[in-house]
Amino acid sequence: MTDSDLDQFWKGLGDLRRAIDDRLDAWLPAADEPPDRLHKAMRYSMFAGGKRVRPILCLLACRAVGGTDERAMPPACAIECIHTYSLIHDDLPAMDNDDFRRGKPSCHKQFDPATAILAGDALLTIAFGMIGRHTTDPEVASRLVVELADAAGWAGMVGGQMADLQAEGNTPDGDALHFIHQRKTGALIRAAVRTGAIAGGAPDGPLDMLDTYARSIGLTFQIADDILDETATSEEMGKTVGKDKAAGKLTFPAVYGIEESRDRAFRITDQAKRAVEPLGEPAEPLRKLADFIVKRTA
Amino acid sequence: MTDSDLDQFWKGLGDLRRAIDDRLDAWLPAADEPPDRLHKAMRYSMFAGGKRVRPILCLLACRAVGGTDERAMPPACAIECIHTYSLIHDDLPAMDNDDFRRGKPSCHKQFDPATAILAGDALLTIAFGMIGRHTTDPEVASRLVVELADAAGWAGMVGGQMADLQAEGNTPDGDALHFIHQRKTGALIRAAVRTGAIAGGAPDGPLDMLDTYARSIGLTFQIADDILDETATSEEMGKTVGKDKAAGKLTFPAVYGIEESRDRAFRITDQAKRAVEPLGEPAEPLRKLADFIVKRTA
Repeated sequence: MTDSDLDQFWKGLGDLRRAIDDRLDAWLPAADEPPDRLHKAMRYSMFAGGKRVRPILCLLACRAVGGTDERAMPPACAIECIHTYSLIHDDLPAMDNDDFRRGKPSCHKQFDPATAILAGDALLTIAFGMIGRHTTDPEVASRLVVELADAAGWAGMVGGQMADLQAEGNTPDGDALHFIHQRKTGALIRAAVRTGAIAGGAPDGPLDMLDTYARSIGLTFQIADDILDETATSEEMGKTVGKDKAAGKLTFPAVYGIEESRDRAFRITDQAKRAVEPLGEPAEPLRKLADFIVKRTA
Repeated sequence: MTDSDLDQFWKGLGDLRRAIDDRLDAWLPAADEPPDRLHKAMRYSMFAGGKRVRPILCLLACRAVGGTDERAMPPACAIECIHTYSLIHDDLPAMDNDDFRRGKPSCHKQFDPATAILAGDALLTIAFGMIGRHTTDPEVASRLVVELADAAGWAGMVGGQMADLQAEGNTPDGDALHFIHQRKTGALIRAAVRTGAIAGGAPDGPLDMLDTYARSIGLTFQIADDILDETATSEEMGKTVGKDKAAGKLTFPAVYGIEESRDRAFRITDQAKRAVEPLGEPAEPLRKLADFIVKRTA
């Protein structure tokens, strides 16, 4: 696949992206509903130009096992709510203290830190409400809630954020790096694919294949982020870059250097694509997406 | 009932309280599990001497409709996790900026604000995981998740906290006061009773009775808190008092005065007790608990 083919593929996902945005718009509280400041803040961050990678993954995983988009909408939207809440809390002065996100003032700068804390809390909470309320099969709903709580909580994303903070300034160490990245970014990306597959009714075999795929692209996604933080400009990224290095964060380039990090990312992408090979044509968009994600490293 | 009967009743709930604590201990991540700082912070606030009013209400509501304690344990523990997370976030410098809670340093003072934010996030997340993982009937699990998300999120607790912040310094106004209190404290207390009843298999009739009970005691609980903030000492409360008045918060005494607030609390308690009269003997502990709660106002 050439770069322009990949860009074409990414643009071709526009309909999917719009369908997700429409659903988020329908399922979030209206901006003028009191207390309006809370709902304006939730919507400000939710519609700040996110790429919707996680919900797209969720829908594509559901399609890969023959499920309809409709079945994957609850976990897809829930995961985007969780992703957005994590960015809001991450940017807070007490956390990464980042004034910009996606080229716009971060939530606590646009509103204030108290509103940002509450908007994050409300997005995390509504994520579970979306699954409970909009999943037709209660057995599936219950399973999705557990997948999502594990991926987002102490054993997943939040645990990774804590480990990340604790590791600042430590000697670069591959094991610690994997511990952090598998949780901080990997867990939610993995959950996006797994919940999509589960919502689509995947049997154990295909679910395992998709799980391998998801763990691999979760890793390349974070490697790409780490590399871009060192090589891209703030304008390109729409957020402050170079902060990881300055803060002594544990990153792939810090442990392996940029070249070796890139090589690893490409090797892992191949593993991801091979894992879903048996799923055939319905998994083709997932393979393209894997290529698109790793492309960000080069 | 005399005061000493009520104290006797409250002490008699010790076994229930221990059963809840044991279950929370079993369902929370171990303190030495990495990243240990996160789990120590979660446990620090969880076992800081909370009275466990909400999980007790949940278990008693389940008993009132003939359910076993075991069935109510998931929502009971989940609600205590949500209550604890809300206290951690509420105490943050960017929110109420309170250095003490239950006579001990608040979470962000004992650890640091970043850890406190993450510990709160993790407690909110694990709450839903507990329901999904430990509720046997998926249909009940799914219903509990929706009840809890609605009670804890934008339409409930978080919405109330935001409205509370927005109302600071406004002219005292009964409608605004009820909007805030029904959400900030009332919603979670109501959810404690409702989820206990649902977990216990309550039909619609008894569920409605318990709902009326729950809404009434949610209100008296907050009136008691408002009055104590003006009349009790910091030593008695284990937290800074008089802050609501100083911050120009909308409270019952601010709108109605202390005497009228007390009268209202007693009238509402009578309504609560009458609502569950038809449930007979199994609901007797709930009626006693209503008396115990209002007693705090006098």
